[in-house]
Amino acid sequence: MLILLRPDVTAEQQRDVEDYVRTLGYTPHVIPGTQRTAIGITGNKGAVDPEPFRLMPGVADAIAVSQPFKLVSREVKPEDTVLQLGQGLRLGGPEIIVAAGPCSVESREQILSTAEAVKASGARMLRGGAFKPRTSPYEFQGLKGDGLALLAEARSASGLLVVTEVKDTESLPMVAETADLLQIGARNMQNFSLLEAVGELRRPVLLKRGMSATLKEMLMAAEYIVARGNRQVILCERGIRTFETMTRNTFDINAIPMLKQLSHLPVFADPSHGVGVRGGIPAVARAAVAAGADGLLIEVHPNPAKALSDGAQSLTFSEFDALMVGVRAVAAAVGRSVAGG
Amino acid sequence: MLILLRPDVTAEQQRDVEDYVRTLGYTPHVIPGTQRTAIGITGNKGAVDPEPFRLMPGVADAIAVSQPFKLVSREVKPEDTVLQLGQGLRLGGPEIIVAAGPCSVESREQILSTAEAVKASGARMLRGGAFKPRTSPYEFQGLKGDGLALLAEARSASGLLVVTEVKDTESLPMVAETADLLQIGARNMQNFSLLEAVGELRRPVLLKRGMSATLKEMLMAAEYIVARGNRQVILCERGIRTFETMTRNTFDINAIPMLKQLSHLPVFADPSHGVGVRGGIPAVARAAVAAGADGLLIEVHPNPAKALSDGAQSLTFSEFDALMVGVRAVAAAVGRSVAGG
Amino acid sequence: MLILLRPDVTAEQQRDVEDYVRTLGYTPHVIPGTQRTAIGITGNKGAVDPEPFRLMPGVADAIAVSQPFKLVSREVKPEDTVLQLGQGLRLGGPEIIVAAGPCSVESREQILSTAEAVKASGARMLRGGAFKPRTSPYEFQGLKGDGLALLAEARSASGLLVVTEVKDTESLPMVAETADLLQIGARNMQNFSLLEAVGELRRPVLLKRGMSATLKEMLMAAEYIVARGNRQVILCERGIRTFETMTRNTFDINAIPMLKQLSHLPVFADPSHGVGVRGGIPAVARAAVAAGADGLLIEVHPNPAKALSDGAQSLTFSEFDALMVGVRAVAAAVGRSVAGG
Amino acid sequence: MLILLRPDVTAEQQRDVEDYVRTLGYTPHVIPGTQRTAIGITGNKGAVDPEPFRLMPGVADAIAVSQPFKLVSREVKPEDTVLQLGQGLRLGGPEIIVAAGPCSVESREQILSTAEAVKASGARMLRGGAFKPRTSPYEFQGLKGDGLALLAEARSASGLLVVTEVKDTESLPMVAETADLLQIGARNMQNFSLLEAVGELRRPVLLKRGMSATLKEMLMAAEYIVARGNRQVILCERGIRTFETMTRNTFDINAIPMLKQLSHLPVFADPSHGVGVRGGIPAVARAAVAAGADGLLIEVHPNPAKALSDGAQSLTFSEFDALMVGVRAVAAAVGRSVAGG
Repeated sequence: MLILLRPDVTAEQQRDVEDYVRTLGYTPHVIPGTQRTAIGITGNKGAVDPEPFRLMPGVADAIAVSQPFKLVSREVKPEDTVLQLGQGLRLGGPEIIVAAGPCSVESREQILSTAEAVKASGARMLRGGAFKPRTSPYEFQGLKGDGLALLAEARSASGLLVVTEVKDTESLPMVAETADLLQIGARNMQNFSLLEAVGELRRPVLLKRGMSATLKEMLMAAEYIVARGNRQVILCERGIRTFETMTRNTFDINAIPMLKQLSHLPVFADPSHGVGVRGGIPAVARAAVAAGADGLLIEVHPNPAKALSDGAQSLTFSEFDALMVGVRAVAAAVGRSVAGG
Repeated sequence: MLILLRPDVTAEQQRDVEDYVRTLGYTPHVIPGTQRTAIGITGNKGAVDPEPFRLMPGVADAIAVSQPFKLVSREVKPEDTVLQLGQGLRLGGPEIIVAAGPCSVESREQILSTAEAVKASGARMLRGGAFKPRTSPYEFQGLKGDGLALLAEARSASGLLVVTEVKDTESLPMVAETADLLQIGARNMQNFSLLEAVGELRRPVLLKRGMSATLKEMLMAAEYIVARGNRQVILCERGIRTFETMTRNTFDINAIPMLKQLSHLPVFADPSHGVGVRGGIPAVARAAVAAGADGLLIEVHPNPAKALSDGAQSLTFSEFDALMVGVRAVAAAVGRSVAGG
Repeated sequence: MLILLRPDVTAEQQRDVEDYVRTLGYTPHVIPGTQRTAIGITGNKGAVDPEPFRLMPGVADAIAVSQPFKLVSREVKPEDTVLQLGQGLRLGGPEIIVAAGPCSVESREQILSTAEAVKASGARMLRGGAFKPRTSPYEFQGLKGDGLALLAEARSASGLLVVTEVKDTESLPMVAETADLLQIGARNMQNFSLLEAVGELRRPVLLKRGMSATLKEMLMAAEYIVARGNRQVILCERGIRTFETMTRNTFDINAIPMLKQLSHLPVFADPSHGVGVRGGIPAVARAAVAAGADGLLIEVHPNPAKALSDGAQSLTFSEFDALMVGVRAVAAAVGRSVAGG
Repeated sequence: MLILLRPDVTAEQQRDVEDYVRTLGYTPHVIPGTQRTAIGITGNKGAVDPEPFRLMPGVADAIAVSQPFKLVSREVKPEDTVLQLGQGLRLGGPEIIVAAGPCSVESREQILSTAEAVKASGARMLRGGAFKPRTSPYEFQGLKGDGLALLAEARSASGLLVVTEVKDTESLPMVAETADLLQIGARNMQNFSLLEAVGELRRPVLLKRGMSATLKEMLMAAEYIVARGNRQVILCERGIRTFETMTRNTFDINAIPMLKQLSHLPVFADPSHGVGVRGGIPAVARAAVAAGADGLLIEVHPNPAKALSDGAQSLTFSEFDALMVGVRAVAAAVGRSVAGG
């Protein structure tokens, strides 16, 4: 159920509506819009009767929401959500934002040189993992706190914003201190305790699609965050697991228009994981932008052959520079531009 | 094994090489190139010794081919194959070719009006099924011979070339009489008897990827056709079957750069089947072109709600016209143009 | 729609019902049962009105069929179909039938020794491919006519019935001359022309599930055969394609109870393709019988390491003998026995 | 690398070996066996030279381990791991253990009556969720602490051991106080922080396979737990996500023999999630036992139609009783028995 308030609603009228929702035993969620404010209702098991709401002063209409995800759906909020990621960096509007950097932060030299290079090519954000979830307990698990410090240093030196993964609630406070954008990895898409914890923050979150998550499940995971009050969620398509073995994953290009149609949240694409084979990444990056992605996440490493993780899918500085040339051209073709490009 | 002939090889020298291959019990395949001619060898179980060939007059080199697919691989033929589909219509070069039309030919009025509309929007080929493979024996199976006749009439009226599916060897002679481009459907990708039969023709073939075929299996299926002497093969990505149920299939955008890297054959994309939901098709069509597709196959119907098959994924005339505007812009962004656009 | 006739219906009354169905433009299918005869109606697009039928003499009831597959559904025929495969060999009743033999017929010595060995261990049918659909055009494609002759010889020598694959309509008459049971391979499950052709025969057909076919699609493929009048269809689960790479396919054990619940047709299991790794085959063979399979198809070879195809999943004679010991014990545990055991 | 000690090794000799491993910068893991003790080495990036170890007193041999998972592999420990779950309840030996109960603990009456009923039918453990990970934030999330208290009460009343899910590190201490067997759910199979936390306990852990986890990934997840010193890990196959929609998941029966071959750990099967359709569960339970499963996890509810979660896959008391009859017969057929049966 969604209650649309009139443009001229008073603060008191709005409060009355919220109170009435609570009286019924449900939870009201205020959803500010550019045209007008709406109030989403959750917590109901069956249908809620719209009539009493329609009769309240300040209420324009009360409508049912057909999807199981509510607050993240376009039904509830038709206009695109635009996030202010940092000074002058708005995501979800005409500008496409590119985040680039290594899979893992490995050394001061590595992260500083990469930050400088990707910035020169047009990236506006630096990606890099400090806490790395790895399939094997014997693989490199990241530099942890030291990695975060290096990311902070690279941010100061380059002016790029930092996106880095948070892998559990224990390290969340520490990661949240450094990260401008908190990444929830694919394996944690349904780690509901972690989703609830980032839902309590008022900080942008990049939610990666689980390896075998349906789009509906991904939107429900986003709903966990937004239901706690954190509206700054970015959905990220990063490839799904299929029978094809020539590529690491199958980048689900369909997901981009489908997510844009179902939800008002911005959509990122991660072609590095989505293809997993260096040669195919620039083509899929261009494709994602052509399909409507609002941002890209690209793995770049000074020397991919020596990377401690994901070397096969990391681009060199010059490969990334060439990728950006192609991305800018396609962005222009779909009426957009690349921020910082 | 691939034998590269010298640019100045004589006809007699070439014949000697071919004869020697046959003496060894193998089959020689002459592969003409713009720079020079090569001879592929198939039929060997283990490795073939390159030395005796290297010593023959007219031979530049003899090299092993690492992939299980041989004649369709880029190792064997590094330059792109360009096919002459019809007068002035070349596929695989700078121009992107769009084929559009209904899933099934349903009536004279339907196919003629569609041909006219899609031509006006920039299509150069008309698609339409006369023999329809259907999941249920009780569904509409196509107009068969009458459908072919209507396609031929629409071609005369519009000047568009015709692409239509051949579903078995029995109807192949009949379909081949009408079709400018013979389509092998996804369910028949590994119908080897049908592949061998179209391999005997000297006519362009559009080979659709099977619903759960790997890229390697698709290239092996193409090899069946080329090994019989028909080099005019087009690979077509049309979506694979995955766990996602919101879309009909998952369009494998990765397939486009991977196929272009592994093979010299032109690559088509079929976003209509790849998404299966009308709203997502234009985005995926643009994405396919951004990723390097050489052509598109789009389902268009005068009245999708009344289509006898695939209505949910058929575009109206005006939706198709809008799609073409987007496709042309992206084509330009990747340094190409749309034929007839 | 299904019309249930009264046990005391006269031949004339039945004919009147069939004629009335034809008058309406539909096709009647007589379905004999042990208790009473039914008449299925196909060819209708929407619902058929049951009332006029209910009023006809000899008619007990007329009921709607909810599934898209009709003649193969349990709604239409509640009791199990029991097929007479050969003298004294009934499939679908209490006895479980095991077919064993090599992937491909390779030589006289190979097929005769295998027939003798698998018979001694309790198999009642000999499997062996003469026409082999292979992923690569350069792989061994079977001994073709010579292979069929060797199978016939092995049958005479051993008394085993022969199951062998038919890969196209061209070779169907030849294969049908030798085969006691015609196998439609996984790649041909939706080769509708071939399904229609075997539907015209009155000969048992083993229909293998396609690599990515849903159970519903498999039942629709069986419907193609039965709708042409050939009721002797056996459904065969042989593993589906998933993301798991440690095994060749994922044997879908769920398919066995689901198919038995949805359809009256007998169900075979092919653990050799379903696992594809020798060590796992006996366990999955036992599991299939525990889940309710009516028959097994097992690959056995005198020397798997030298097999021209599928060596990794072929059992030796003694491995097969051990498998049969386990299968017999599990069959007894579920109240059945192994024919010939 | 695995160092096999001589049966007559002294405590001092063993300590010397462990110290030498640490000197090299690696971690020694003592693996007690019935015949002799072994020491696994982890933490090495490349190969470790076996020669120095072979020369040490008390060392029988030093061998390389080819699999990426080490401590859980059969290479490292050839004999089956047998776990003492409770007094007189040993898992991994000849007896098969059945855990049954509702998806969620819903009320005192519900859990007590279920415990009594499943015990009467032969179950030895009670399953029931108190902390429920749910796809939607608006669905029932379990009774939490109250649910644990009810499980403890049901244990006292029935004598059944309790298996319940732990969904995050925050609730682990609380859950560990009640659970005899800690369940890690499918969505948490790669929640590495949680795996490490249960790895610090000395308590049995049931690790469920992730929805799209390969067997190799599952074994690596188990390795995370064992590498921290907790050897009491049970692997649980619960179905994987595939394209098939008629069943909730595809139970991977192949996983059972493959896991038994690759690892020494006991293997459970969860047919309730693996099929997800009530009618198919008994057949798949029998199949799992026929394939070699050491235990079963079955959802049972007093009134499935009113269950707050998973009603469609919950059995009634009498359906469960019938299932156990079938399971006992199949267990006997494979030379085993059902504990408590």
